[in-house]
Amino acid sequence: MSISTESDFPAHLQPYAEQIDGLREVGRVFWERGWSVGTSSNYSVVVDRNPTKILVTASGKHKGRLSRADFVLVDSHGEPIQAEQPKSSAETLLHCVAAEDSSVGAILHTHSVWSTVLSDRFSAQGGILLEGYEMLKGLSGVTTHEHAEWLPIFENTQHIPDLAAKVKAAMQSPEQPLTHGYIIRKHGIYTWGQDLDEAFRQIEILEFLLECVARTGALS
Amino acid sequence: MSISTESDFPAHLQPYAEQIDGLREVGRVFWERGWSVGTSSNYSVVVDRNPTKILVTASGKHKGRLSRADFVLVDSHGEPIQAEQPKSSAETLLHCVAAEDSSVGAILHTHSVWSTVLSDRFSAQGGILLEGYEMLKGLSGVTTHEHAEWLPIFENTQHIPDLAAKVKAAMQSPEQPLTHGYIIRKHGIYTWGQDLDEAFRQIEILEFLLECVARTGALS
Amino acid sequence: MSISTESDFPAHLQPYAEQIDGLREVGRVFWERGWSVGTSSNYSVVVDRNPTKILVTASGKHKGRLSRADFVLVDSHGEPIQAEQPKSSAETLLHCVAAEDSSVGAILHTHSVWSTVLSDRFSAQGGILLEGYEMLKGLSGVTTHEHAEWLPIFENTQHIPDLAAKVKAAMQSPEQPLTHGYIIRKHGIYTWGQDLDEAFRQIEILEFLLECVARTGALS
Amino acid sequence: MSISTESDFPAHLQPYAEQIDGLREVGRVFWERGWSVGTSSNYSVVVDRNPTKILVTASGKHKGRLSRADFVLVDSHGEPIQAEQPKSSAETLLHCVAAEDSSVGAILHTHSVWSTVLSDRFSAQGGILLEGYEMLKGLSGVTTHEHAEWLPIFENTQHIPDLAAKVKAAMQSPEQPLTHGYIIRKHGIYTWGQDLDEAFRQIEILEFLLECVARTGALS
Repeated sequence: MSISTESDFPAHLQPYAEQIDGLREVGRVFWERGWSVGTSSNYSVVVDRNPTKILVTASGKHKGRLSRADFVLVDSHGEPIQAEQPKSSAETLLHCVAAEDSSVGAILHTHSVWSTVLSDRFSAQGGILLEGYEMLKGLSGVTTHEHAEWLPIFENTQHIPDLAAKVKAAMQSPEQPLTHGYIIRKHGIYTWGQDLDEAFRQIEILEFLLECVARTGALS
Repeated sequence: MSISTESDFPAHLQPYAEQIDGLREVGRVFWERGWSVGTSSNYSVVVDRNPTKILVTASGKHKGRLSRADFVLVDSHGEPIQAEQPKSSAETLLHCVAAEDSSVGAILHTHSVWSTVLSDRFSAQGGILLEGYEMLKGLSGVTTHEHAEWLPIFENTQHIPDLAAKVKAAMQSPEQPLTHGYIIRKHGIYTWGQDLDEAFRQIEILEFLLECVARTGALS
Repeated sequence: MSISTESDFPAHLQPYAEQIDGLREVGRVFWERGWSVGTSSNYSVVVDRNPTKILVTASGKHKGRLSRADFVLVDSHGEPIQAEQPKSSAETLLHCVAAEDSSVGAILHTHSVWSTVLSDRFSAQGGILLEGYEMLKGLSGVTTHEHAEWLPIFENTQHIPDLAAKVKAAMQSPEQPLTHGYIIRKHGIYTWGQDLDEAFRQIEILEFLLECVARTGALS
Repeated sequence: MSISTESDFPAHLQPYAEQIDGLREVGRVFWERGWSVGTSSNYSVVVDRNPTKILVTASGKHKGRLSRADFVLVDSHGEPIQAEQPKSSAETLLHCVAAEDSSVGAILHTHSVWSTVLSDRFSAQGGILLEGYEMLKGLSGVTTHEHAEWLPIFENTQHIPDLAAKVKAAMQSPEQPLTHGYIIRKHGIYTWGQDLDEAFRQIEILEFLLECVARTGALS
């Protein structure tokens, strides 16, 4: 392929080399897993607080071959902090909403086959119930398999501010706050963690559990 | 295996080293993905216009281990431009037809399990409808998931000129022009892009969407 | 990712560098296979007898990126032998129970999709019958495909001593002693061998056979 | 793992270093594909004629990590040519039978999930029909997709001479000679080619086609 993975490294990104290389590695692994094919998916890390600074993948880049230049710095509203950056992902606002929780340090969004297929199959019930699996203990704060995780499904839209408002309301819901992640119908998963390792682990857990649900559904 | 991947590099191909290495990398990745097993599949890049010159994989080569010599230069009719080249792929004419569109710079043909299986399952309806998926936005010119992509299915044949004529008619159809690609029944996918990166991305997108259709079909 | 795989190598673990690197390689392979995603799974090697000393993975580590420090030495009761070690896996006792058999040199526990899905599907019958497969000959002591392997399923629990007692009783059962391994419902597989190679091979065999059962179930 | 892949290279095998390394690479690839897990599978190359000398994998070796010492030289009856060799595969006679055809230069036997599952599903009809697939053209001598390949299924047995006699009769059948390969029920595939590359390609083709049959069967 003609895309280089080592193009120029912009000066304003150089302080974040470690986070950038972490996100590039995430892209490489997720592409190999089939969770981020083509230019789909976007990933971010919160690199500063007060005020919030988020490092997010630029729009339209192939996730299996991210270069160090394929990142953008945005503020808590998703606005570029620096001039002359590439366009940030169209879904940047969804990262900002997750980052409003001050314990969140990294946000990962993938487009897997299982999340796409199941989000359509279970759309009428508004979410997917993941219950009784030992693997649930991989989600932060879950300490027993006797746990029922409700992964809500939101309808897909190209109007991201609308979706961001709905996600924000769900995250702040007093009864059943959205904690570990959600699915957008026929689109993909969003999850987050206090750092990139935790968010990475949570994507692995959620993908595993969705595959279990789908494989169980294909058995009978 | 006894096949070397670094045999002699013919002089007439040396100006196209970058494109050739790009196509070899495509072969390696697609073979690993299971989309180009054995000697199946063929790939090409348009290396010149006025007149058109197409660089296409030679016939009968293992796509996971393409050497720099495993390529042929042909003209817009699929005829060899250079003497003493290996035989070009039997399906070279299908590349030529796609390359008649002057915006097309690369053409990829794969033989995946999902395209093979679904092309048979949906042959009676003449195509596969891919609708409402966010991933559709990875196809060039598609900007919303509210898009219905019709992937036509052509009957397989060993008489490639006949098939090429049908594909050409479909690409030039005034009502519903074939834009992103098509499937040949129990055979595989053809897609193209303005360059190799775009064509590569489109194969990834189409394979993803076909897998979604097949996995959905296996659920109930 | 920010996790290094070459952090300091504690002095008390240095005599076991070969076994540690073997277990790290197991982790890398199983993670790639999807059998040990996130921080799931745990592995051990018996490094001494009289008294028994077991080297087991520390709790909460990512199995695809184990460092040389991510291991703990425990005695036959699962108690740490050395001060200031990281916490051993919550399921250490299950390793100790398997290690009571003096011919056991390595114990592997994985969390695969197939074992999770099938353990739930077959929970009512208390186990999974693997019968008539040539691949059964990969299990130690099995010399013909005309063999019926009963893989018992135990209910999952967070109270490991209870489960350990049940497993111990099953391993010592006079009628049908548990020989090659077992499954915990919606959780994963335990297996063991006289050394790490044999245990590794047995996980491969059991995973293969479970996939056969599941794929057969999805056919009709 | 404790198994080295570069142990001593026996003198009597050194003339066959190229073939040995070819077979080791085959093992590595097939293990990664899941077609040769554990110590299953065996592979051979005919290294001499008049009299016939066959180089075959030793019994009980892990196919993903074959060392140069893990091979045995046998004659046309499967008897060891050299003293003090490791035991050859229990199924060596099946390689000898295929090698009786003087055009055969390499024989590959794999244990894949699809061949195992389908050989059981279709055992009553005595074989699997692979028909109308473009990919069939990857089998030697097949020049059109309008081809019906009958892949016979033999019952599994631990008495290899019996099975070898049946295979021999089928290969020499005047009406429908067995040409490209066969399946042993709940066991695996045998195929062959004039050299290792052709045999490798044929395994890829047969595995692809079996997956197509199985995926089609899981759709409805």
